[in-house]
Amino acid sequence: MMERESVRMTAPADDVFQRDCAGRDILDHVTSRWATLILASLVAGPHRFSELNAKIGGISEKMLSQNLRTLVRDGLVKRTVTPTVPPQVSYSHTPLGADLTVQLWGLVSWIGNHTNDILEAQVRHDAATIHP
Amino acid sequence: MMERESVRMTAPADDVFQRDCAGRDILDHVTSRWATLILASLVAGPHRFSELNAKIGGISEKMLSQNLRTLVRDGLVKRTVTPTVPPQVSYSHTPLGADLTVQLWGLVSWIGNHTNDILEAQVRHDAATIHP
Repeated sequence: MMERESVRMTAPADDVFQRDCAGRDILDHVTSRWATLILASLVAGPHRFSELNAKIGGISEKMLSQNLRTLVRDGLVKRTVTPTVPPQVSYSHTPLGADLTVQLWGLVSWIGNHTNDILEAQVRHDAATIHP
Repeated sequence: MMERESVRMTAPADDVFQRDCAGRDILDHVTSRWATLILASLVAGPHRFSELNAKIGGISEKMLSQNLRTLVRDGLVKRTVTPTVPPQVSYSHTPLGADLTVQLWGLVSWIGNHTNDILEAQVRHDAATIHP
């Protein structure tokens, strides 16, 4: 707990409150639903496009393709082409992407553990609003 | 590092890969730009609406109001009315919101520390695409 406090206090996050902070765009796209799930999938190792498509329920090929392009451009995911016949393409974390995923994973795990708390809060809130 | 590995391996995140996981909606809205910045602002203590509006550059009153309503409904932010004349309204973390913010703050700090790495990766990628 003390360690978490010190992380909180020393975080250099003031810039992010400024309208023109470049980190805001990066926050937007790394925390998008699909980018988070792609980065989380790659914790288990390299995946081919079809494997990611099968693993991430509900993602369209178009969204998977767009998000992979963005993550490769950001230096978070590495696209590797193996010159077999036919060529095999696989996607994996870069070191930067693996490091980010540790942070994202903490958040995703927290949400996994507290989804019911939030759903219960919503029910209590709505009941109080209907019968104040 | 070992500790982070073990957090990663024991995370109960399989559900989030399923199309109908309720956690996905929660991930979407707690990681939205404005919800993240509101929760991060409240690390410094309770704020009035006008204080949040001044602190978070570029947020409109409408977006601030909508996001606060959602965060209150989720049980992450507490809205307190002090019966003075005129009444004073302030917003603060609930214990659940404070706990989530520790996770979000790790992510926001990481992005603050690595924004330049990502911007440099984008420049390298675009240069390689133009002159392959």
